[in-house]
Amino acid sequence: MPGLLILSKQADAYRSLLEAANLPDLQILDAGQAGNFALSEIVFGEPDLIRAQLPGLGGLKWAQSTWAGVEPLLDPSLRRDYVLSNARGVFGGLMSEFVLAYLLLHERKVLRRLAAQQERRWDATLTGTLRGKTIGLLGVGSIGAELARTARFLGMKVRGYTRASEDCEFVDEYYHAGRLLDFATGLDYLVASLPATPDTRRVVDAALLARLPAHALFINVGRGSAVDDAALIAALQSGALAGAVLDVFSQEPLSPAHPFWATPNVLITSHTSAPSFPAQIAGLFIENYRRYIAGQSVLYQVDFERGY
Amino acid sequence: MPGLLILSKQADAYRSLLEAANLPDLQILDAGQAGNFALSEIVFGEPDLIRAQLPGLGGLKWAQSTWAGVEPLLDPSLRRDYVLSNARGVFGGLMSEFVLAYLLLHERKVLRRLAAQQERRWDATLTGTLRGKTIGLLGVGSIGAELARTARFLGMKVRGYTRASEDCEFVDEYYHAGRLLDFATGLDYLVASLPATPDTRRVVDAALLARLPAHALFINVGRGSAVDDAALIAALQSGALAGAVLDVFSQEPLSPAHPFWATPNVLITSHTSAPSFPAQIAGLFIENYRRYIAGQSVLYQVDFERGY
Repeated sequence: MPGLLILSKQADAYRSLLEAANLPDLQILDAGQAGNFALSEIVFGEPDLIRAQLPGLGGLKWAQSTWAGVEPLLDPSLRRDYVLSNARGVFGGLMSEFVLAYLLLHERKVLRRLAAQQERRWDATLTGTLRGKTIGLLGVGSIGAELARTARFLGMKVRGYTRASEDCEFVDEYYHAGRLLDFATGLDYLVASLPATPDTRRVVDAALLARLPAHALFINVGRGSAVDDAALIAALQSGALAGAVLDVFSQEPLSPAHPFWATPNVLITSHTSAPSFPAQIAGLFIENYRRYIAGQSVLYQVDFERGY
Repeated sequence: MPGLLILSKQADAYRSLLEAANLPDLQILDAGQAGNFALSEIVFGEPDLIRAQLPGLGGLKWAQSTWAGVEPLLDPSLRRDYVLSNARGVFGGLMSEFVLAYLLLHERKVLRRLAAQQERRWDATLTGTLRGKTIGLLGVGSIGAELARTARFLGMKVRGYTRASEDCEFVDEYYHAGRLLDFATGLDYLVASLPATPDTRRVVDAALLARLPAHALFINVGRGSAVDDAALIAALQSGALAGAVLDVFSQEPLSPAHPFWATPNVLITSHTSAPSFPAQIAGLFIENYRRYIAGQSVLYQVDFERGY
């Protein structure tokens, strides 16, 4: 009977959900008892909390992350003698709502209209529209694919940049390594949903930003490490870029001293674009647990070398 | 050869578009020459501008409105001896973007996050989501149908209230006269896209608003006459309703003295939800002109009695 340790800020919610699922042969261990750490075969929780306990998890065979990003567990100095699976396929819907919210805030001139209302001023400035615009998706994993589907539905043209994959039917045009600058040229919106890996480090740099038109909007829902902060700030300050919506940062929480807080046309959303709702993530764990005890491979296994 | 008079604030744009279309047998008359009014068989433009010239349009057979709403021409004291067609089928996309923009502004807590940014404060307050919410469409014409399609795509449940029609496949549940309060009960979002007719006058009243939960949001993209302003203000002031997004008003522009400007949780968007872009409206005119000269009935003919 495999023992499960839940290492999560929402451990109580997860325990209730898993108990209600009445999973065969599963023993949920009490994380409050130190002796249980060595006994657990399965761990389910946030990567940073798992990392802190990693040395003591003597019997660990499988860890299920509640997050998509698992960087805390990718440090080459850490053990890799277990199966690590991440949360995938559940964030696309929320991410799409997030991206839509801010694309529309921009096109519909919502903040300008709010300011007019403060002055009791009827402001019939024409609205913009998403229709006919070109969105570039930097990364087309499960999140990017859902963004593509939503963008297509709303009449946008969709470019996708990936290492090699071309799996998403809603991408109109794919670009791969070596064509990053062509990918960026003339985009109305650039949305990054890249994982943090050595390959994605600072891909949004001055050269890429220079290819975007001055009316373009950049949205980052992936990882902060994909952005050269200084280059982004320079582009916004010079007016070479119309705006940036930043949900993720190289260091979180973002320090109060960071210049992003007051850079013109930056909106900061404090890593709220797609929270891990326990009911969804527990569903993923339950599916993977059934596979695990049946001796099948779990879904969304992370390649420690590749980083996702 | 039928003579056309263009009576629009964007007359120059329309003239260029129609000239470029090279329509057979069409003579575009100069509205600057008074003698041309009596000669014109076709008028194309804004209903208020057409109304002002109506007595002098001796040869008028067909008027194409650039707007969806044609109230200025519905006054029973005015002549009705001509075919009137309105603009329809072109606003649904923009209206959907408008409604989405404000539903997402609400769910994603965008204004709260902006306030946190002003204080350089990392605010990880959980986001809401559109998924699983119930939207009620008060009116399911061409605009409501497109709203339904978009809402369904984003995972909402869709209720539709109409006089009798049940034409839209994206409405999950229809309600008709006599069941207005059932329709409203428990909605997360109420969106009115009703034309201004005697039947729709003040349908959004205290009794209807009382059926909405306190977390509900009301959006009006139809006509201001559908709302009992005092009842709406009372619901918002008492906290019985979470918010209202008002694009249209009984009197436009809204007077600076109107209490809406400063009612808590009201957002005013100054009739910008779906502008008549000349290229789209000209396309509609062109299609209807081809029908007209072929002796066919034009699309979107208005029933003067019904009012749309």
